[in-house]
Amino acid sequence: MALQKIDTYPFSVAPFDDDFTGHLSWGVLGKHILSCAERHAGARQFDSMQRNGHQYLWVLSRMIIEMEQWPYLDEEYSIATWIRRYYYYFTDRCFDVMNAQQQVIGRVFTIWAMIDGTTREPQMLQELFGKTFDPYIDLERPYSAPSFSRIKQQSEQPIATREPHYSDIDQNGHVNSIRYIEYLLDLFPKERFAAQQVSRMEITYNCETYADEMLSFYIDPLSANDYHVTIRKNVGSEQHPKGQVVCHSALTFSNRTS
Amino acid sequence: MALQKIDTYPFSVAPFDDDFTGHLSWGVLGKHILSCAERHAGARQFDSMQRNGHQYLWVLSRMIIEMEQWPYLDEEYSIATWIRRYYYYFTDRCFDVMNAQQQVIGRVFTIWAMIDGTTREPQMLQELFGKTFDPYIDLERPYSAPSFSRIKQQSEQPIATREPHYSDIDQNGHVNSIRYIEYLLDLFPKERFAAQQVSRMEITYNCETYADEMLSFYIDPLSANDYHVTIRKNVGSEQHPKGQVVCHSALTFSNRTS
Repeated sequence: MALQKIDTYPFSVAPFDDDFTGHLSWGVLGKHILSCAERHAGARQFDSMQRNGHQYLWVLSRMIIEMEQWPYLDEEYSIATWIRRYYYYFTDRCFDVMNAQQQVIGRVFTIWAMIDGTTREPQMLQELFGKTFDPYIDLERPYSAPSFSRIKQQSEQPIATREPHYSDIDQNGHVNSIRYIEYLLDLFPKERFAAQQVSRMEITYNCETYADEMLSFYIDPLSANDYHVTIRKNVGSEQHPKGQVVCHSALTFSNRTS
Repeated sequence: MALQKIDTYPFSVAPFDDDFTGHLSWGVLGKHILSCAERHAGARQFDSMQRNGHQYLWVLSRMIIEMEQWPYLDEEYSIATWIRRYYYYFTDRCFDVMNAQQQVIGRVFTIWAMIDGTTREPQMLQELFGKTFDPYIDLERPYSAPSFSRIKQQSEQPIATREPHYSDIDQNGHVNSIRYIEYLLDLFPKERFAAQQVSRMEITYNCETYADEMLSFYIDPLSANDYHVTIRKNVGSEQHPKGQVVCHSALTFSNRTS
């Protein structure tokens, strides 16, 4: 018998899950989003796996997170997740973040691919699993329809560089997809986060980063509160003088309401 | 009626609590150690507090962590904590890290001070709280007797620099004491952590770091697996040409046993 389509996981803002203002940090929220995806997929035998001597890994391809409210230290919240669609190499997964009163305070839309751990090539999902995800597709729950920005890097001067090391690397052997969120936030002065918070974050992941590859960050401001940021790696290398695009992102700041 | 002296908190290695080898990461272990301290103190009305318009904050002064085994992804573990002593400005707090079979796999010894949030000056604990910690002092449970190293910086050339930003700052307004652990590990090549792990870490915190203060790292190797590392801030500034010591640390690598 198939499991339910939607799973909901409870959390609370533990000490040190918060940023300096006492609100849940982006890093911890992002980590929990990833772990809910893994637990939901795992419970349905769609998780990362070994097969025929190959290791297959889920990797995040695109993500939009929109947060209206941020839980505060010690507050309870929960994350519901479900599959919206799968198509060839990709699957769309949605998340609702809910406060203790079960009101939706954030919506997350993600697109995932499963790669071969050795070749790092995406796999046809239905072939790979030998079954469809159909029993688990939920089309009824409202979700944040994806509207990905067209992000074209204009700036030619990096505003910062950063070299990932041991503590940035996850079990997939690359910089964890949530670490980039911290890298992006850290481009802005800490003072700004006293009165504002990033309320919308969009990332398109283009290529992986490994330890010791230098990242360069290019900011294009669109308005006082909207930014496009492009991350490139290995800029100035012989093979790729302009570097390779690691990800394109869009960030929107809003005033804190609590 | 006084509460028990020792509290034990259960954890499990959730997805993304691990490092790239699948073992609990130092960063997450450290965060849980801090949060156990906060919960244990809070339950006994010894936590950070507002009084007479002042805010008082616990800050970590010294720490030794010795780990024999690292829990693996999905494994359960627990952390027990108790107060060993208090004296003038300081209190000693111990922790045992236990695996699912209740065997002690790690021991932590910490020394804390409570500072005034404005002056950043340490406070006489008994005066501040108007009571002693006596009912909660446990002298019976075995603990790792502190043996702090004499750490004297020899190297004059920093091996790396790093500028903390928004995501490094905690509710105390400074770089979180556990972030330094990640900074220290990141001085070593990721490859080393495939076969080895840091099994002992000792940190003496000398002064706080705020956002945008540049940190410089000086490594003194003592043997193939033992290092002293000194972190300084604002090296080369007019006021402090040699910078100010942020912390002294000692690290020992051991071969991974699992």
